[in-house]
Amino acid sequence: AAAGLAQDDFVGISFWIISMALMASTVFFLWETQGVTAKWKTSLVVSALVTFIAAVHYFYMRDVWVATGESPTVFRYIDWLLTVPLLMIEFYLILRAIGVASIGIFWRLLIGTLVMLIPGYLGESGYINIWVGFVIGMLGWFYILYEIFYGEAGKAAETQATPAVKYAYKAMCWIVTVGWAIYPIGYVAGYTGVGSSEALNIIYNFADLVNKVAFGLLIWYAATTESQAEP
Amino acid sequence: AAAGLAQDDFVGISFWIISMALMASTVFFLWETQGVTAKWKTSLVVSALVTFIAAVHYFYMRDVWVATGESPTVFRYIDWLLTVPLLMIEFYLILRAIGVASIGIFWRLLIGTLVMLIPGYLGESGYINIWVGFVIGMLGWFYILYEIFYGEAGKAAETQATPAVKYAYKAMCWIVTVGWAIYPIGYVAGYTGVGSSEALNIIYNFADLVNKVAFGLLIWYAATTESQAEP
Ligand SMILES: CC1=C(/C=C/C(C)=C/C=C/C(C)=C/C=O)C(C)(C)CCC1
Ligand SMILES: CC1=C(/C=C/C(C)=C/C=C/C(C)=C/C=O)C(C)(C)CCC1
Repeated sequence: AAAGLAQDDFVGISFWIISMALMASTVFFLWETQGVTAKWKTSLVVSALVTFIAAVHYFYMRDVWVATGESPTVFRYIDWLLTVPLLMIEFYLILRAIGVASIGIFWRLLIGTLVMLIPGYLGESGYINIWVGFVIGMLGWFYILYEIFYGEAGKAAETQATPAVKYAYKAMCWIVTVGWAIYPIGYVAGYTGVGSSEALNIIYNFADLVNKVAFGLLIWYAATTESQAEP
Repeated sequence: AAAGLAQDDFVGISFWIISMALMASTVFFLWETQGVTAKWKTSLVVSALVTFIAAVHYFYMRDVWVATGESPTVFRYIDWLLTVPLLMIEFYLILRAIGVASIGIFWRLLIGTLVMLIPGYLGESGYINIWVGFVIGMLGWFYILYEIFYGEAGKAAETQATPAVKYAYKAMCWIVTVGWAIYPIGYVAGYTGVGSSEALNIIYNFADLVNKVAFGLLIWYAATTESQAEP
C-alpha cells in the first residue's frame, strides 16, 4: 500500500494521517494511566481501546481505499459497532467514578447505538432504501441525545458531580451533539446528487478524528485535573 | 524490502539506521516515564509519540526508497504534519509544568507550523512553484522562532522558570533555530542545479534524527534532573 499512495490522493492521505494519529493516541492514553488516580485509569484505558480498535480498522480501510478507490463501508461499520458502545461505556464510567451510575443507563445508550448504526449500514450497503436507513438512524441518535441530556444520566451528572466531572460530562454531551452531527452530513454528502465517495470518506474520517481522539483527550483532561487536585 | 537494500545505497542505509534509532528512542522515552515525577511524564510520553510516529513512517519511507529510488515526499509531510505539532505541544507542556502556559501559545505555534509545512508540500509536489512554497514556508518558520524567543512563550520561560526548565527551554529554542535550519538546506539541495533527490533525502533524514531524538533527549534530561531535585 505504501508505494500506492499518490501525492494527490487526499482521501488516502487523510486515511493515513488518521491511522497514525489513532495509533499515537492509543500509546498516549495507555501511558497516561500512570499519572491518574485508580478510578480514572479505567476511563483512560477505554479511550485507548476506542483509538486502538479504530487504528487497526483505519489501516485496513486505508489499504482498501488506496487499492480500489472504493468506500470501505463494511470496515467502518464494524469499527463503529465496537467503538460507539465503548464511548457509551465512558458515560457510564464517568458517572460511576462519582458514584451515581446505574447499569440501565448503559443499556439504553446501547439500544440507541444499535438503532443508529444498523439501519445506517443497511442503507449504505443497499439492503434497504438509503433514506429510510438514514431517518431511522437519526432517531437512534436523537434518543441517545435525549438520554444524555435529559434522561437518568443527564440528571445524575447535573446534581452530583464535582467540577471536573461536570466539565467533562458537559463537553462529552457537546461532542455527541456537534461532533456526531458530522456523520449524517457525510452520509448526505455521499449519496445526494452532488455527492461523491471522496466527500463521504473525507467527512467520515474527519468526524472520527474529532469523536475518538478529542473525546479521549477530554477524559484525559478531566482525569489529570482531578488526580492533581487529590494529593 | 530487506533483500533489496544494496550495499552502496547509502540513502537507503540512512533510512534504515534512522528507523531503528527512532524505534529504540520510543521504547526509551516510554520506559523512562517510570522514573520521573507526574508532571514530567506527559512530556516524555509526547517525545515517545514523536519518535513512534516517525519510526512507522520511516519504515514506509525506507520501503518506498529501496523499491523505487524515489523521494517519499507524501509520507514525509504526513509525518511532519503530525510530529511538528507534537513538538509545539512540548513547548506548551514544559511551560505548563512550571505553571505559566496559556493555550494561546500552542495555537500560535500550530498556525506557524501549518504555514511552514503546507506550502512546502505544495512546492515539493508541484502544485505551486517550488520557490514560492519555499519562501512562504520560511516565513512560517520565522514566525515560530519569533514566538518562542520573543513572544508570550519566550517571556514566560525567561521570567519564571527553574534552572532545569530554563536550560531545557533554551536548548529547545536552539534546536528549532539550528536543527530546523537543516530542512531548508535539504530543500535547496534537492531542487537546485547541482542538487539531487539523494542529497535531499540524506539531509532530511539527518535533520529528523537531530530534531526528533535529540529534542526528546533534552526533555528527558530536564525531566530526570528536576525529578531528582524534588525528593
Ligand atoms: C445519525 C446517523 C448516522 C450516525 C453515525 C454516527 C454518529 C457514528 C458515530 C461513530 C463514532 C462516534 C465512532 C467513534 O468511535 C449514520 C449511521 C452515519 C447514518 C444514519 C444517521
Ligand atoms: C522552513 C522550510 C521548511 C521547513 C521544514 C521543517 C523545519 C520541518 C521540521 C520537521 C520536524 C522538526 C520534524 C520533527 O519531528 C520546508 C517545509 C522543508 C520547506 C519550506 C521552508
